[in-house]
Amino acid sequence: MMEVNATSDRCDPDRPAHPGVFPTRVAGERDHQPAERSVDFPVSVVLPAGGTGERTGLQTPKQFCSFLGRPLISYTVQAFERVSWIQSIVVVVAKENMDLMTDIVQRFQHRKVRAVPGGSSRHRSIWNGVLALGAGQGAVVIIHDAVRPFVDEDLLYKIATAAKEHGAAGAVRPLVSTVIATTPDGYLDHSLERAKYRASEMPQGFTYDVIHQAYQQCSESDFEFGTECLHLALQYCGTNAKLIQGPPTLWKVTYKRDLAAAESIIKDALSRSACVITGGSARAATLADALQKAVGALGTELDVIPDLKGGNSRYLLKENFIQVSVGRSCLSEVEAVLTELQAANRALLHPLVVIWVHLSDSDELSVSVRAAEPAAIMDLSSAAKLRNILLYGIQLHQSKDTEGWERSLSRVAELTSALIRERSPALVGQLLQA
Amino acid sequence: MMEVNATSDRCDPDRPAHPGVFPTRVAGERDHQPAERSVDFPVSVVLPAGGTGERTGLQTPKQFCSFLGRPLISYTVQAFERVSWIQSIVVVVAKENMDLMTDIVQRFQHRKVRAVPGGSSRHRSIWNGVLALGAGQGAVVIIHDAVRPFVDEDLLYKIATAAKEHGAAGAVRPLVSTVIATTPDGYLDHSLERAKYRASEMPQGFTYDVIHQAYQQCSESDFEFGTECLHLALQYCGTNAKLIQGPPTLWKVTYKRDLAAAESIIKDALSRSACVITGGSARAATLADALQKAVGALGTELDVIPDLKGGNSRYLLKENFIQVSVGRSCLSEVEAVLTELQAANRALLHPLVVIWVHLSDSDELSVSVRAAEPAAIMDLSSAAKLRNILLYGIQLHQSKDTEGWERSLSRVAELTSALIRERSPALVGQLLQA
Repeated sequence: MMEVNATSDRCDPDRPAHPGVFPTRVAGERDHQPAERSVDFPVSVVLPAGGTGERTGLQTPKQFCSFLGRPLISYTVQAFERVSWIQSIVVVVAKENMDLMTDIVQRFQHRKVRAVPGGSSRHRSIWNGVLALGAGQGAVVIIHDAVRPFVDEDLLYKIATAAKEHGAAGAVRPLVSTVIATTPDGYLDHSLERAKYRASEMPQGFTYDVIHQAYQQCSESDFEFGTECLHLALQYCGTNAKLIQGPPTLWKVTYKRDLAAAESIIKDALSRSACVITGGSARAATLADALQKAVGALGTELDVIPDLKGGNSRYLLKENFIQVSVGRSCLSEVEAVLTELQAANRALLHPLVVIWVHLSDSDELSVSVRAAEPAAIMDLSSAAKLRNILLYGIQLHQSKDTEGWERSLSRVAELTSALIRERSPALVGQLLQA
Repeated sequence: MMEVNATSDRCDPDRPAHPGVFPTRVAGERDHQPAERSVDFPVSVVLPAGGTGERTGLQTPKQFCSFLGRPLISYTVQAFERVSWIQSIVVVVAKENMDLMTDIVQRFQHRKVRAVPGGSSRHRSIWNGVLALGAGQGAVVIIHDAVRPFVDEDLLYKIATAAKEHGAAGAVRPLVSTVIATTPDGYLDHSLERAKYRASEMPQGFTYDVIHQAYQQCSESDFEFGTECLHLALQYCGTNAKLIQGPPTLWKVTYKRDLAAAESIIKDALSRSACVITGGSARAATLADALQKAVGALGTELDVIPDLKGGNSRYLLKENFIQVSVGRSCLSEVEAVLTELQAANRALLHPLVVIWVHLSDSDELSVSVRAAEPAAIMDLSSAAKLRNILLYGIQLHQSKDTEGWERSLSRVAELTSALIRERSPALVGQLLQA
């Protein structure tokens, strides 16, 4: 029987199931973008995030639910903020959430963002946002959902340029289910031919003139009950929006299961690669090379470096760090890594993982767990956790036979891979045995 | 700022996001169903599972992707098998997957299931399945997707009885996105009024006569390109299907993110409750009571019992076990639990979790980690893993001050909760420190 990990790329390698190009950028690598497209007109964004959860009995509206300590809305904001040609972002929130949103903007150091209070319906909120932009003729306004955090620059570019050219543009996806029309008493009336229809998704783009005119002219009933901006542009401006197929990761976080799916995509993105620091020791370097192969085979790519100084300081942009030490058991190297990460303010947007892998000279499991070590790493991890750094230890044992060594090595790899992927706060400070 | 765990019920407590009634039953508690409805006509099921992944470049078709060591199709089969009034299930698979499916049926001891080879399209496969049923007049045939594992008895009952009454019935869901019609050159033509339409989902039910006649009379083009059985019943039998709104958990596992969502629902279901075994010692019972409160506060309900014998053998149906010991450090009690679980064949459908929580008398972290213990629990866990039981250890330390004790206790609770929820194979055999 095929045994496939549920999150493995072996299921669904390169079509709908693939999370698109987003994940390579979630990592906050703002300064390492691929070559950017030029956009020679002003582009602003309105993000309606007005749901209070009241209608649906939610205690926390989904846009404020946290993933790895950070609310969904902050991920969405970051997706726009990292695009250099996007000038400003207006987030429209319910009045009672204004303070919360202001707090999020400050805490995660968002720069292009302003929060404005929403209206009593989705369209009124978007209209408030458009007015708050104060954009002018020639500008393009992108409208997106706060609960669609995985939007990439490529699609934003296509939407913005198509909106500029055609007046309006929107992302679409193929229908997953057949759509059927119902009779008033709950029977099938007819089913639609799936190929002729699409699901209308976000982002959508409009020239400022089109979206402004659409909202100025639309009816109270549109404001109250409508949901589709493309429809208003068609009805009140005669603009047939250009439709652009987006990736499946555009989906809207709607149900509880979507929270788990979003968390999984974020964790995937954060566990792609790690950096192994050897401290320059030859024995540590040998162990690091073995780890590189074993962990690489489990899907996380490792770079091996002696330290984080000089040119290697660029590795501070990684999400995961493995400090390898052999023989002497000493946490000072780990402390140094923690200090450097803190100085670089690298754990602002998501927790970093630091794993201390220590190979003791003894082949006796029991003897190597020395008196001070478990307590020391526990203390160190408690302090690091307050700075959003998750520290774990793995104790590896010298083995006389090759088979035992291979088994230990594969266990280190499995543990490392699981710690990096799961980012479990409960396990910090543990000294695991390999 | 509100910090909400992505999988917590605090986000989306009781509407779409809630995974419905399924999870209370995923646990394989076949013999503990709520009062069953009576169904006085024969009901059979056809499960098309014919996708080979070829069209989409999948290495493993989604229905054969594994969650916690068990393929998705087995979860779906179980969802039907546990319903007493369902008589037989025909799974239609591609010829090249017949052996795989037969293996799954044997390995997970499915009883009502037969695998038959599929045709070259979805409708041809379903038709093969209907013919293989050999059901007769008066019978109802339920058609479902292999990749919708979370279907509950309540909905199946509604579909079956509505199909019996009206000839055909199908599950529907509200549309999440607006549906739009496109022009041939990729522009918006018009958008549909969302309230008038529904997404057609599965399961669907038909009287045998209706589904048989529909397939006998439908065209080659229907067989080749059609997807909607309700449409065939309408077109060829004049039967307007009764539509029944299903829960959001009916959704079809389509994209990679859906695999993570499905895994999360399965893990939720398996981490609802656990059973604490004290061995009858008064000190262990005191610790168990403290754990009951602390772990309960994190969302897992604990039952405290002295052992699994006599009337307590009903607790063998739990998914998670915590063996508590105080003072003496002895793994024999854990070994006894493992033996009992194995004898009851309880780890057939999903991995069970056994956690050994040991409170040592010493308040010195280092001294308590005695020579033999870590190696012994590692060995025991390796053997248990082969029997689908995940064994972990937690070492708790007597503390002189209340504050230290509270901290340890809350760490045990956090660790226990994380181990039960994550069911990580990488961490088995670890003796974690609390």
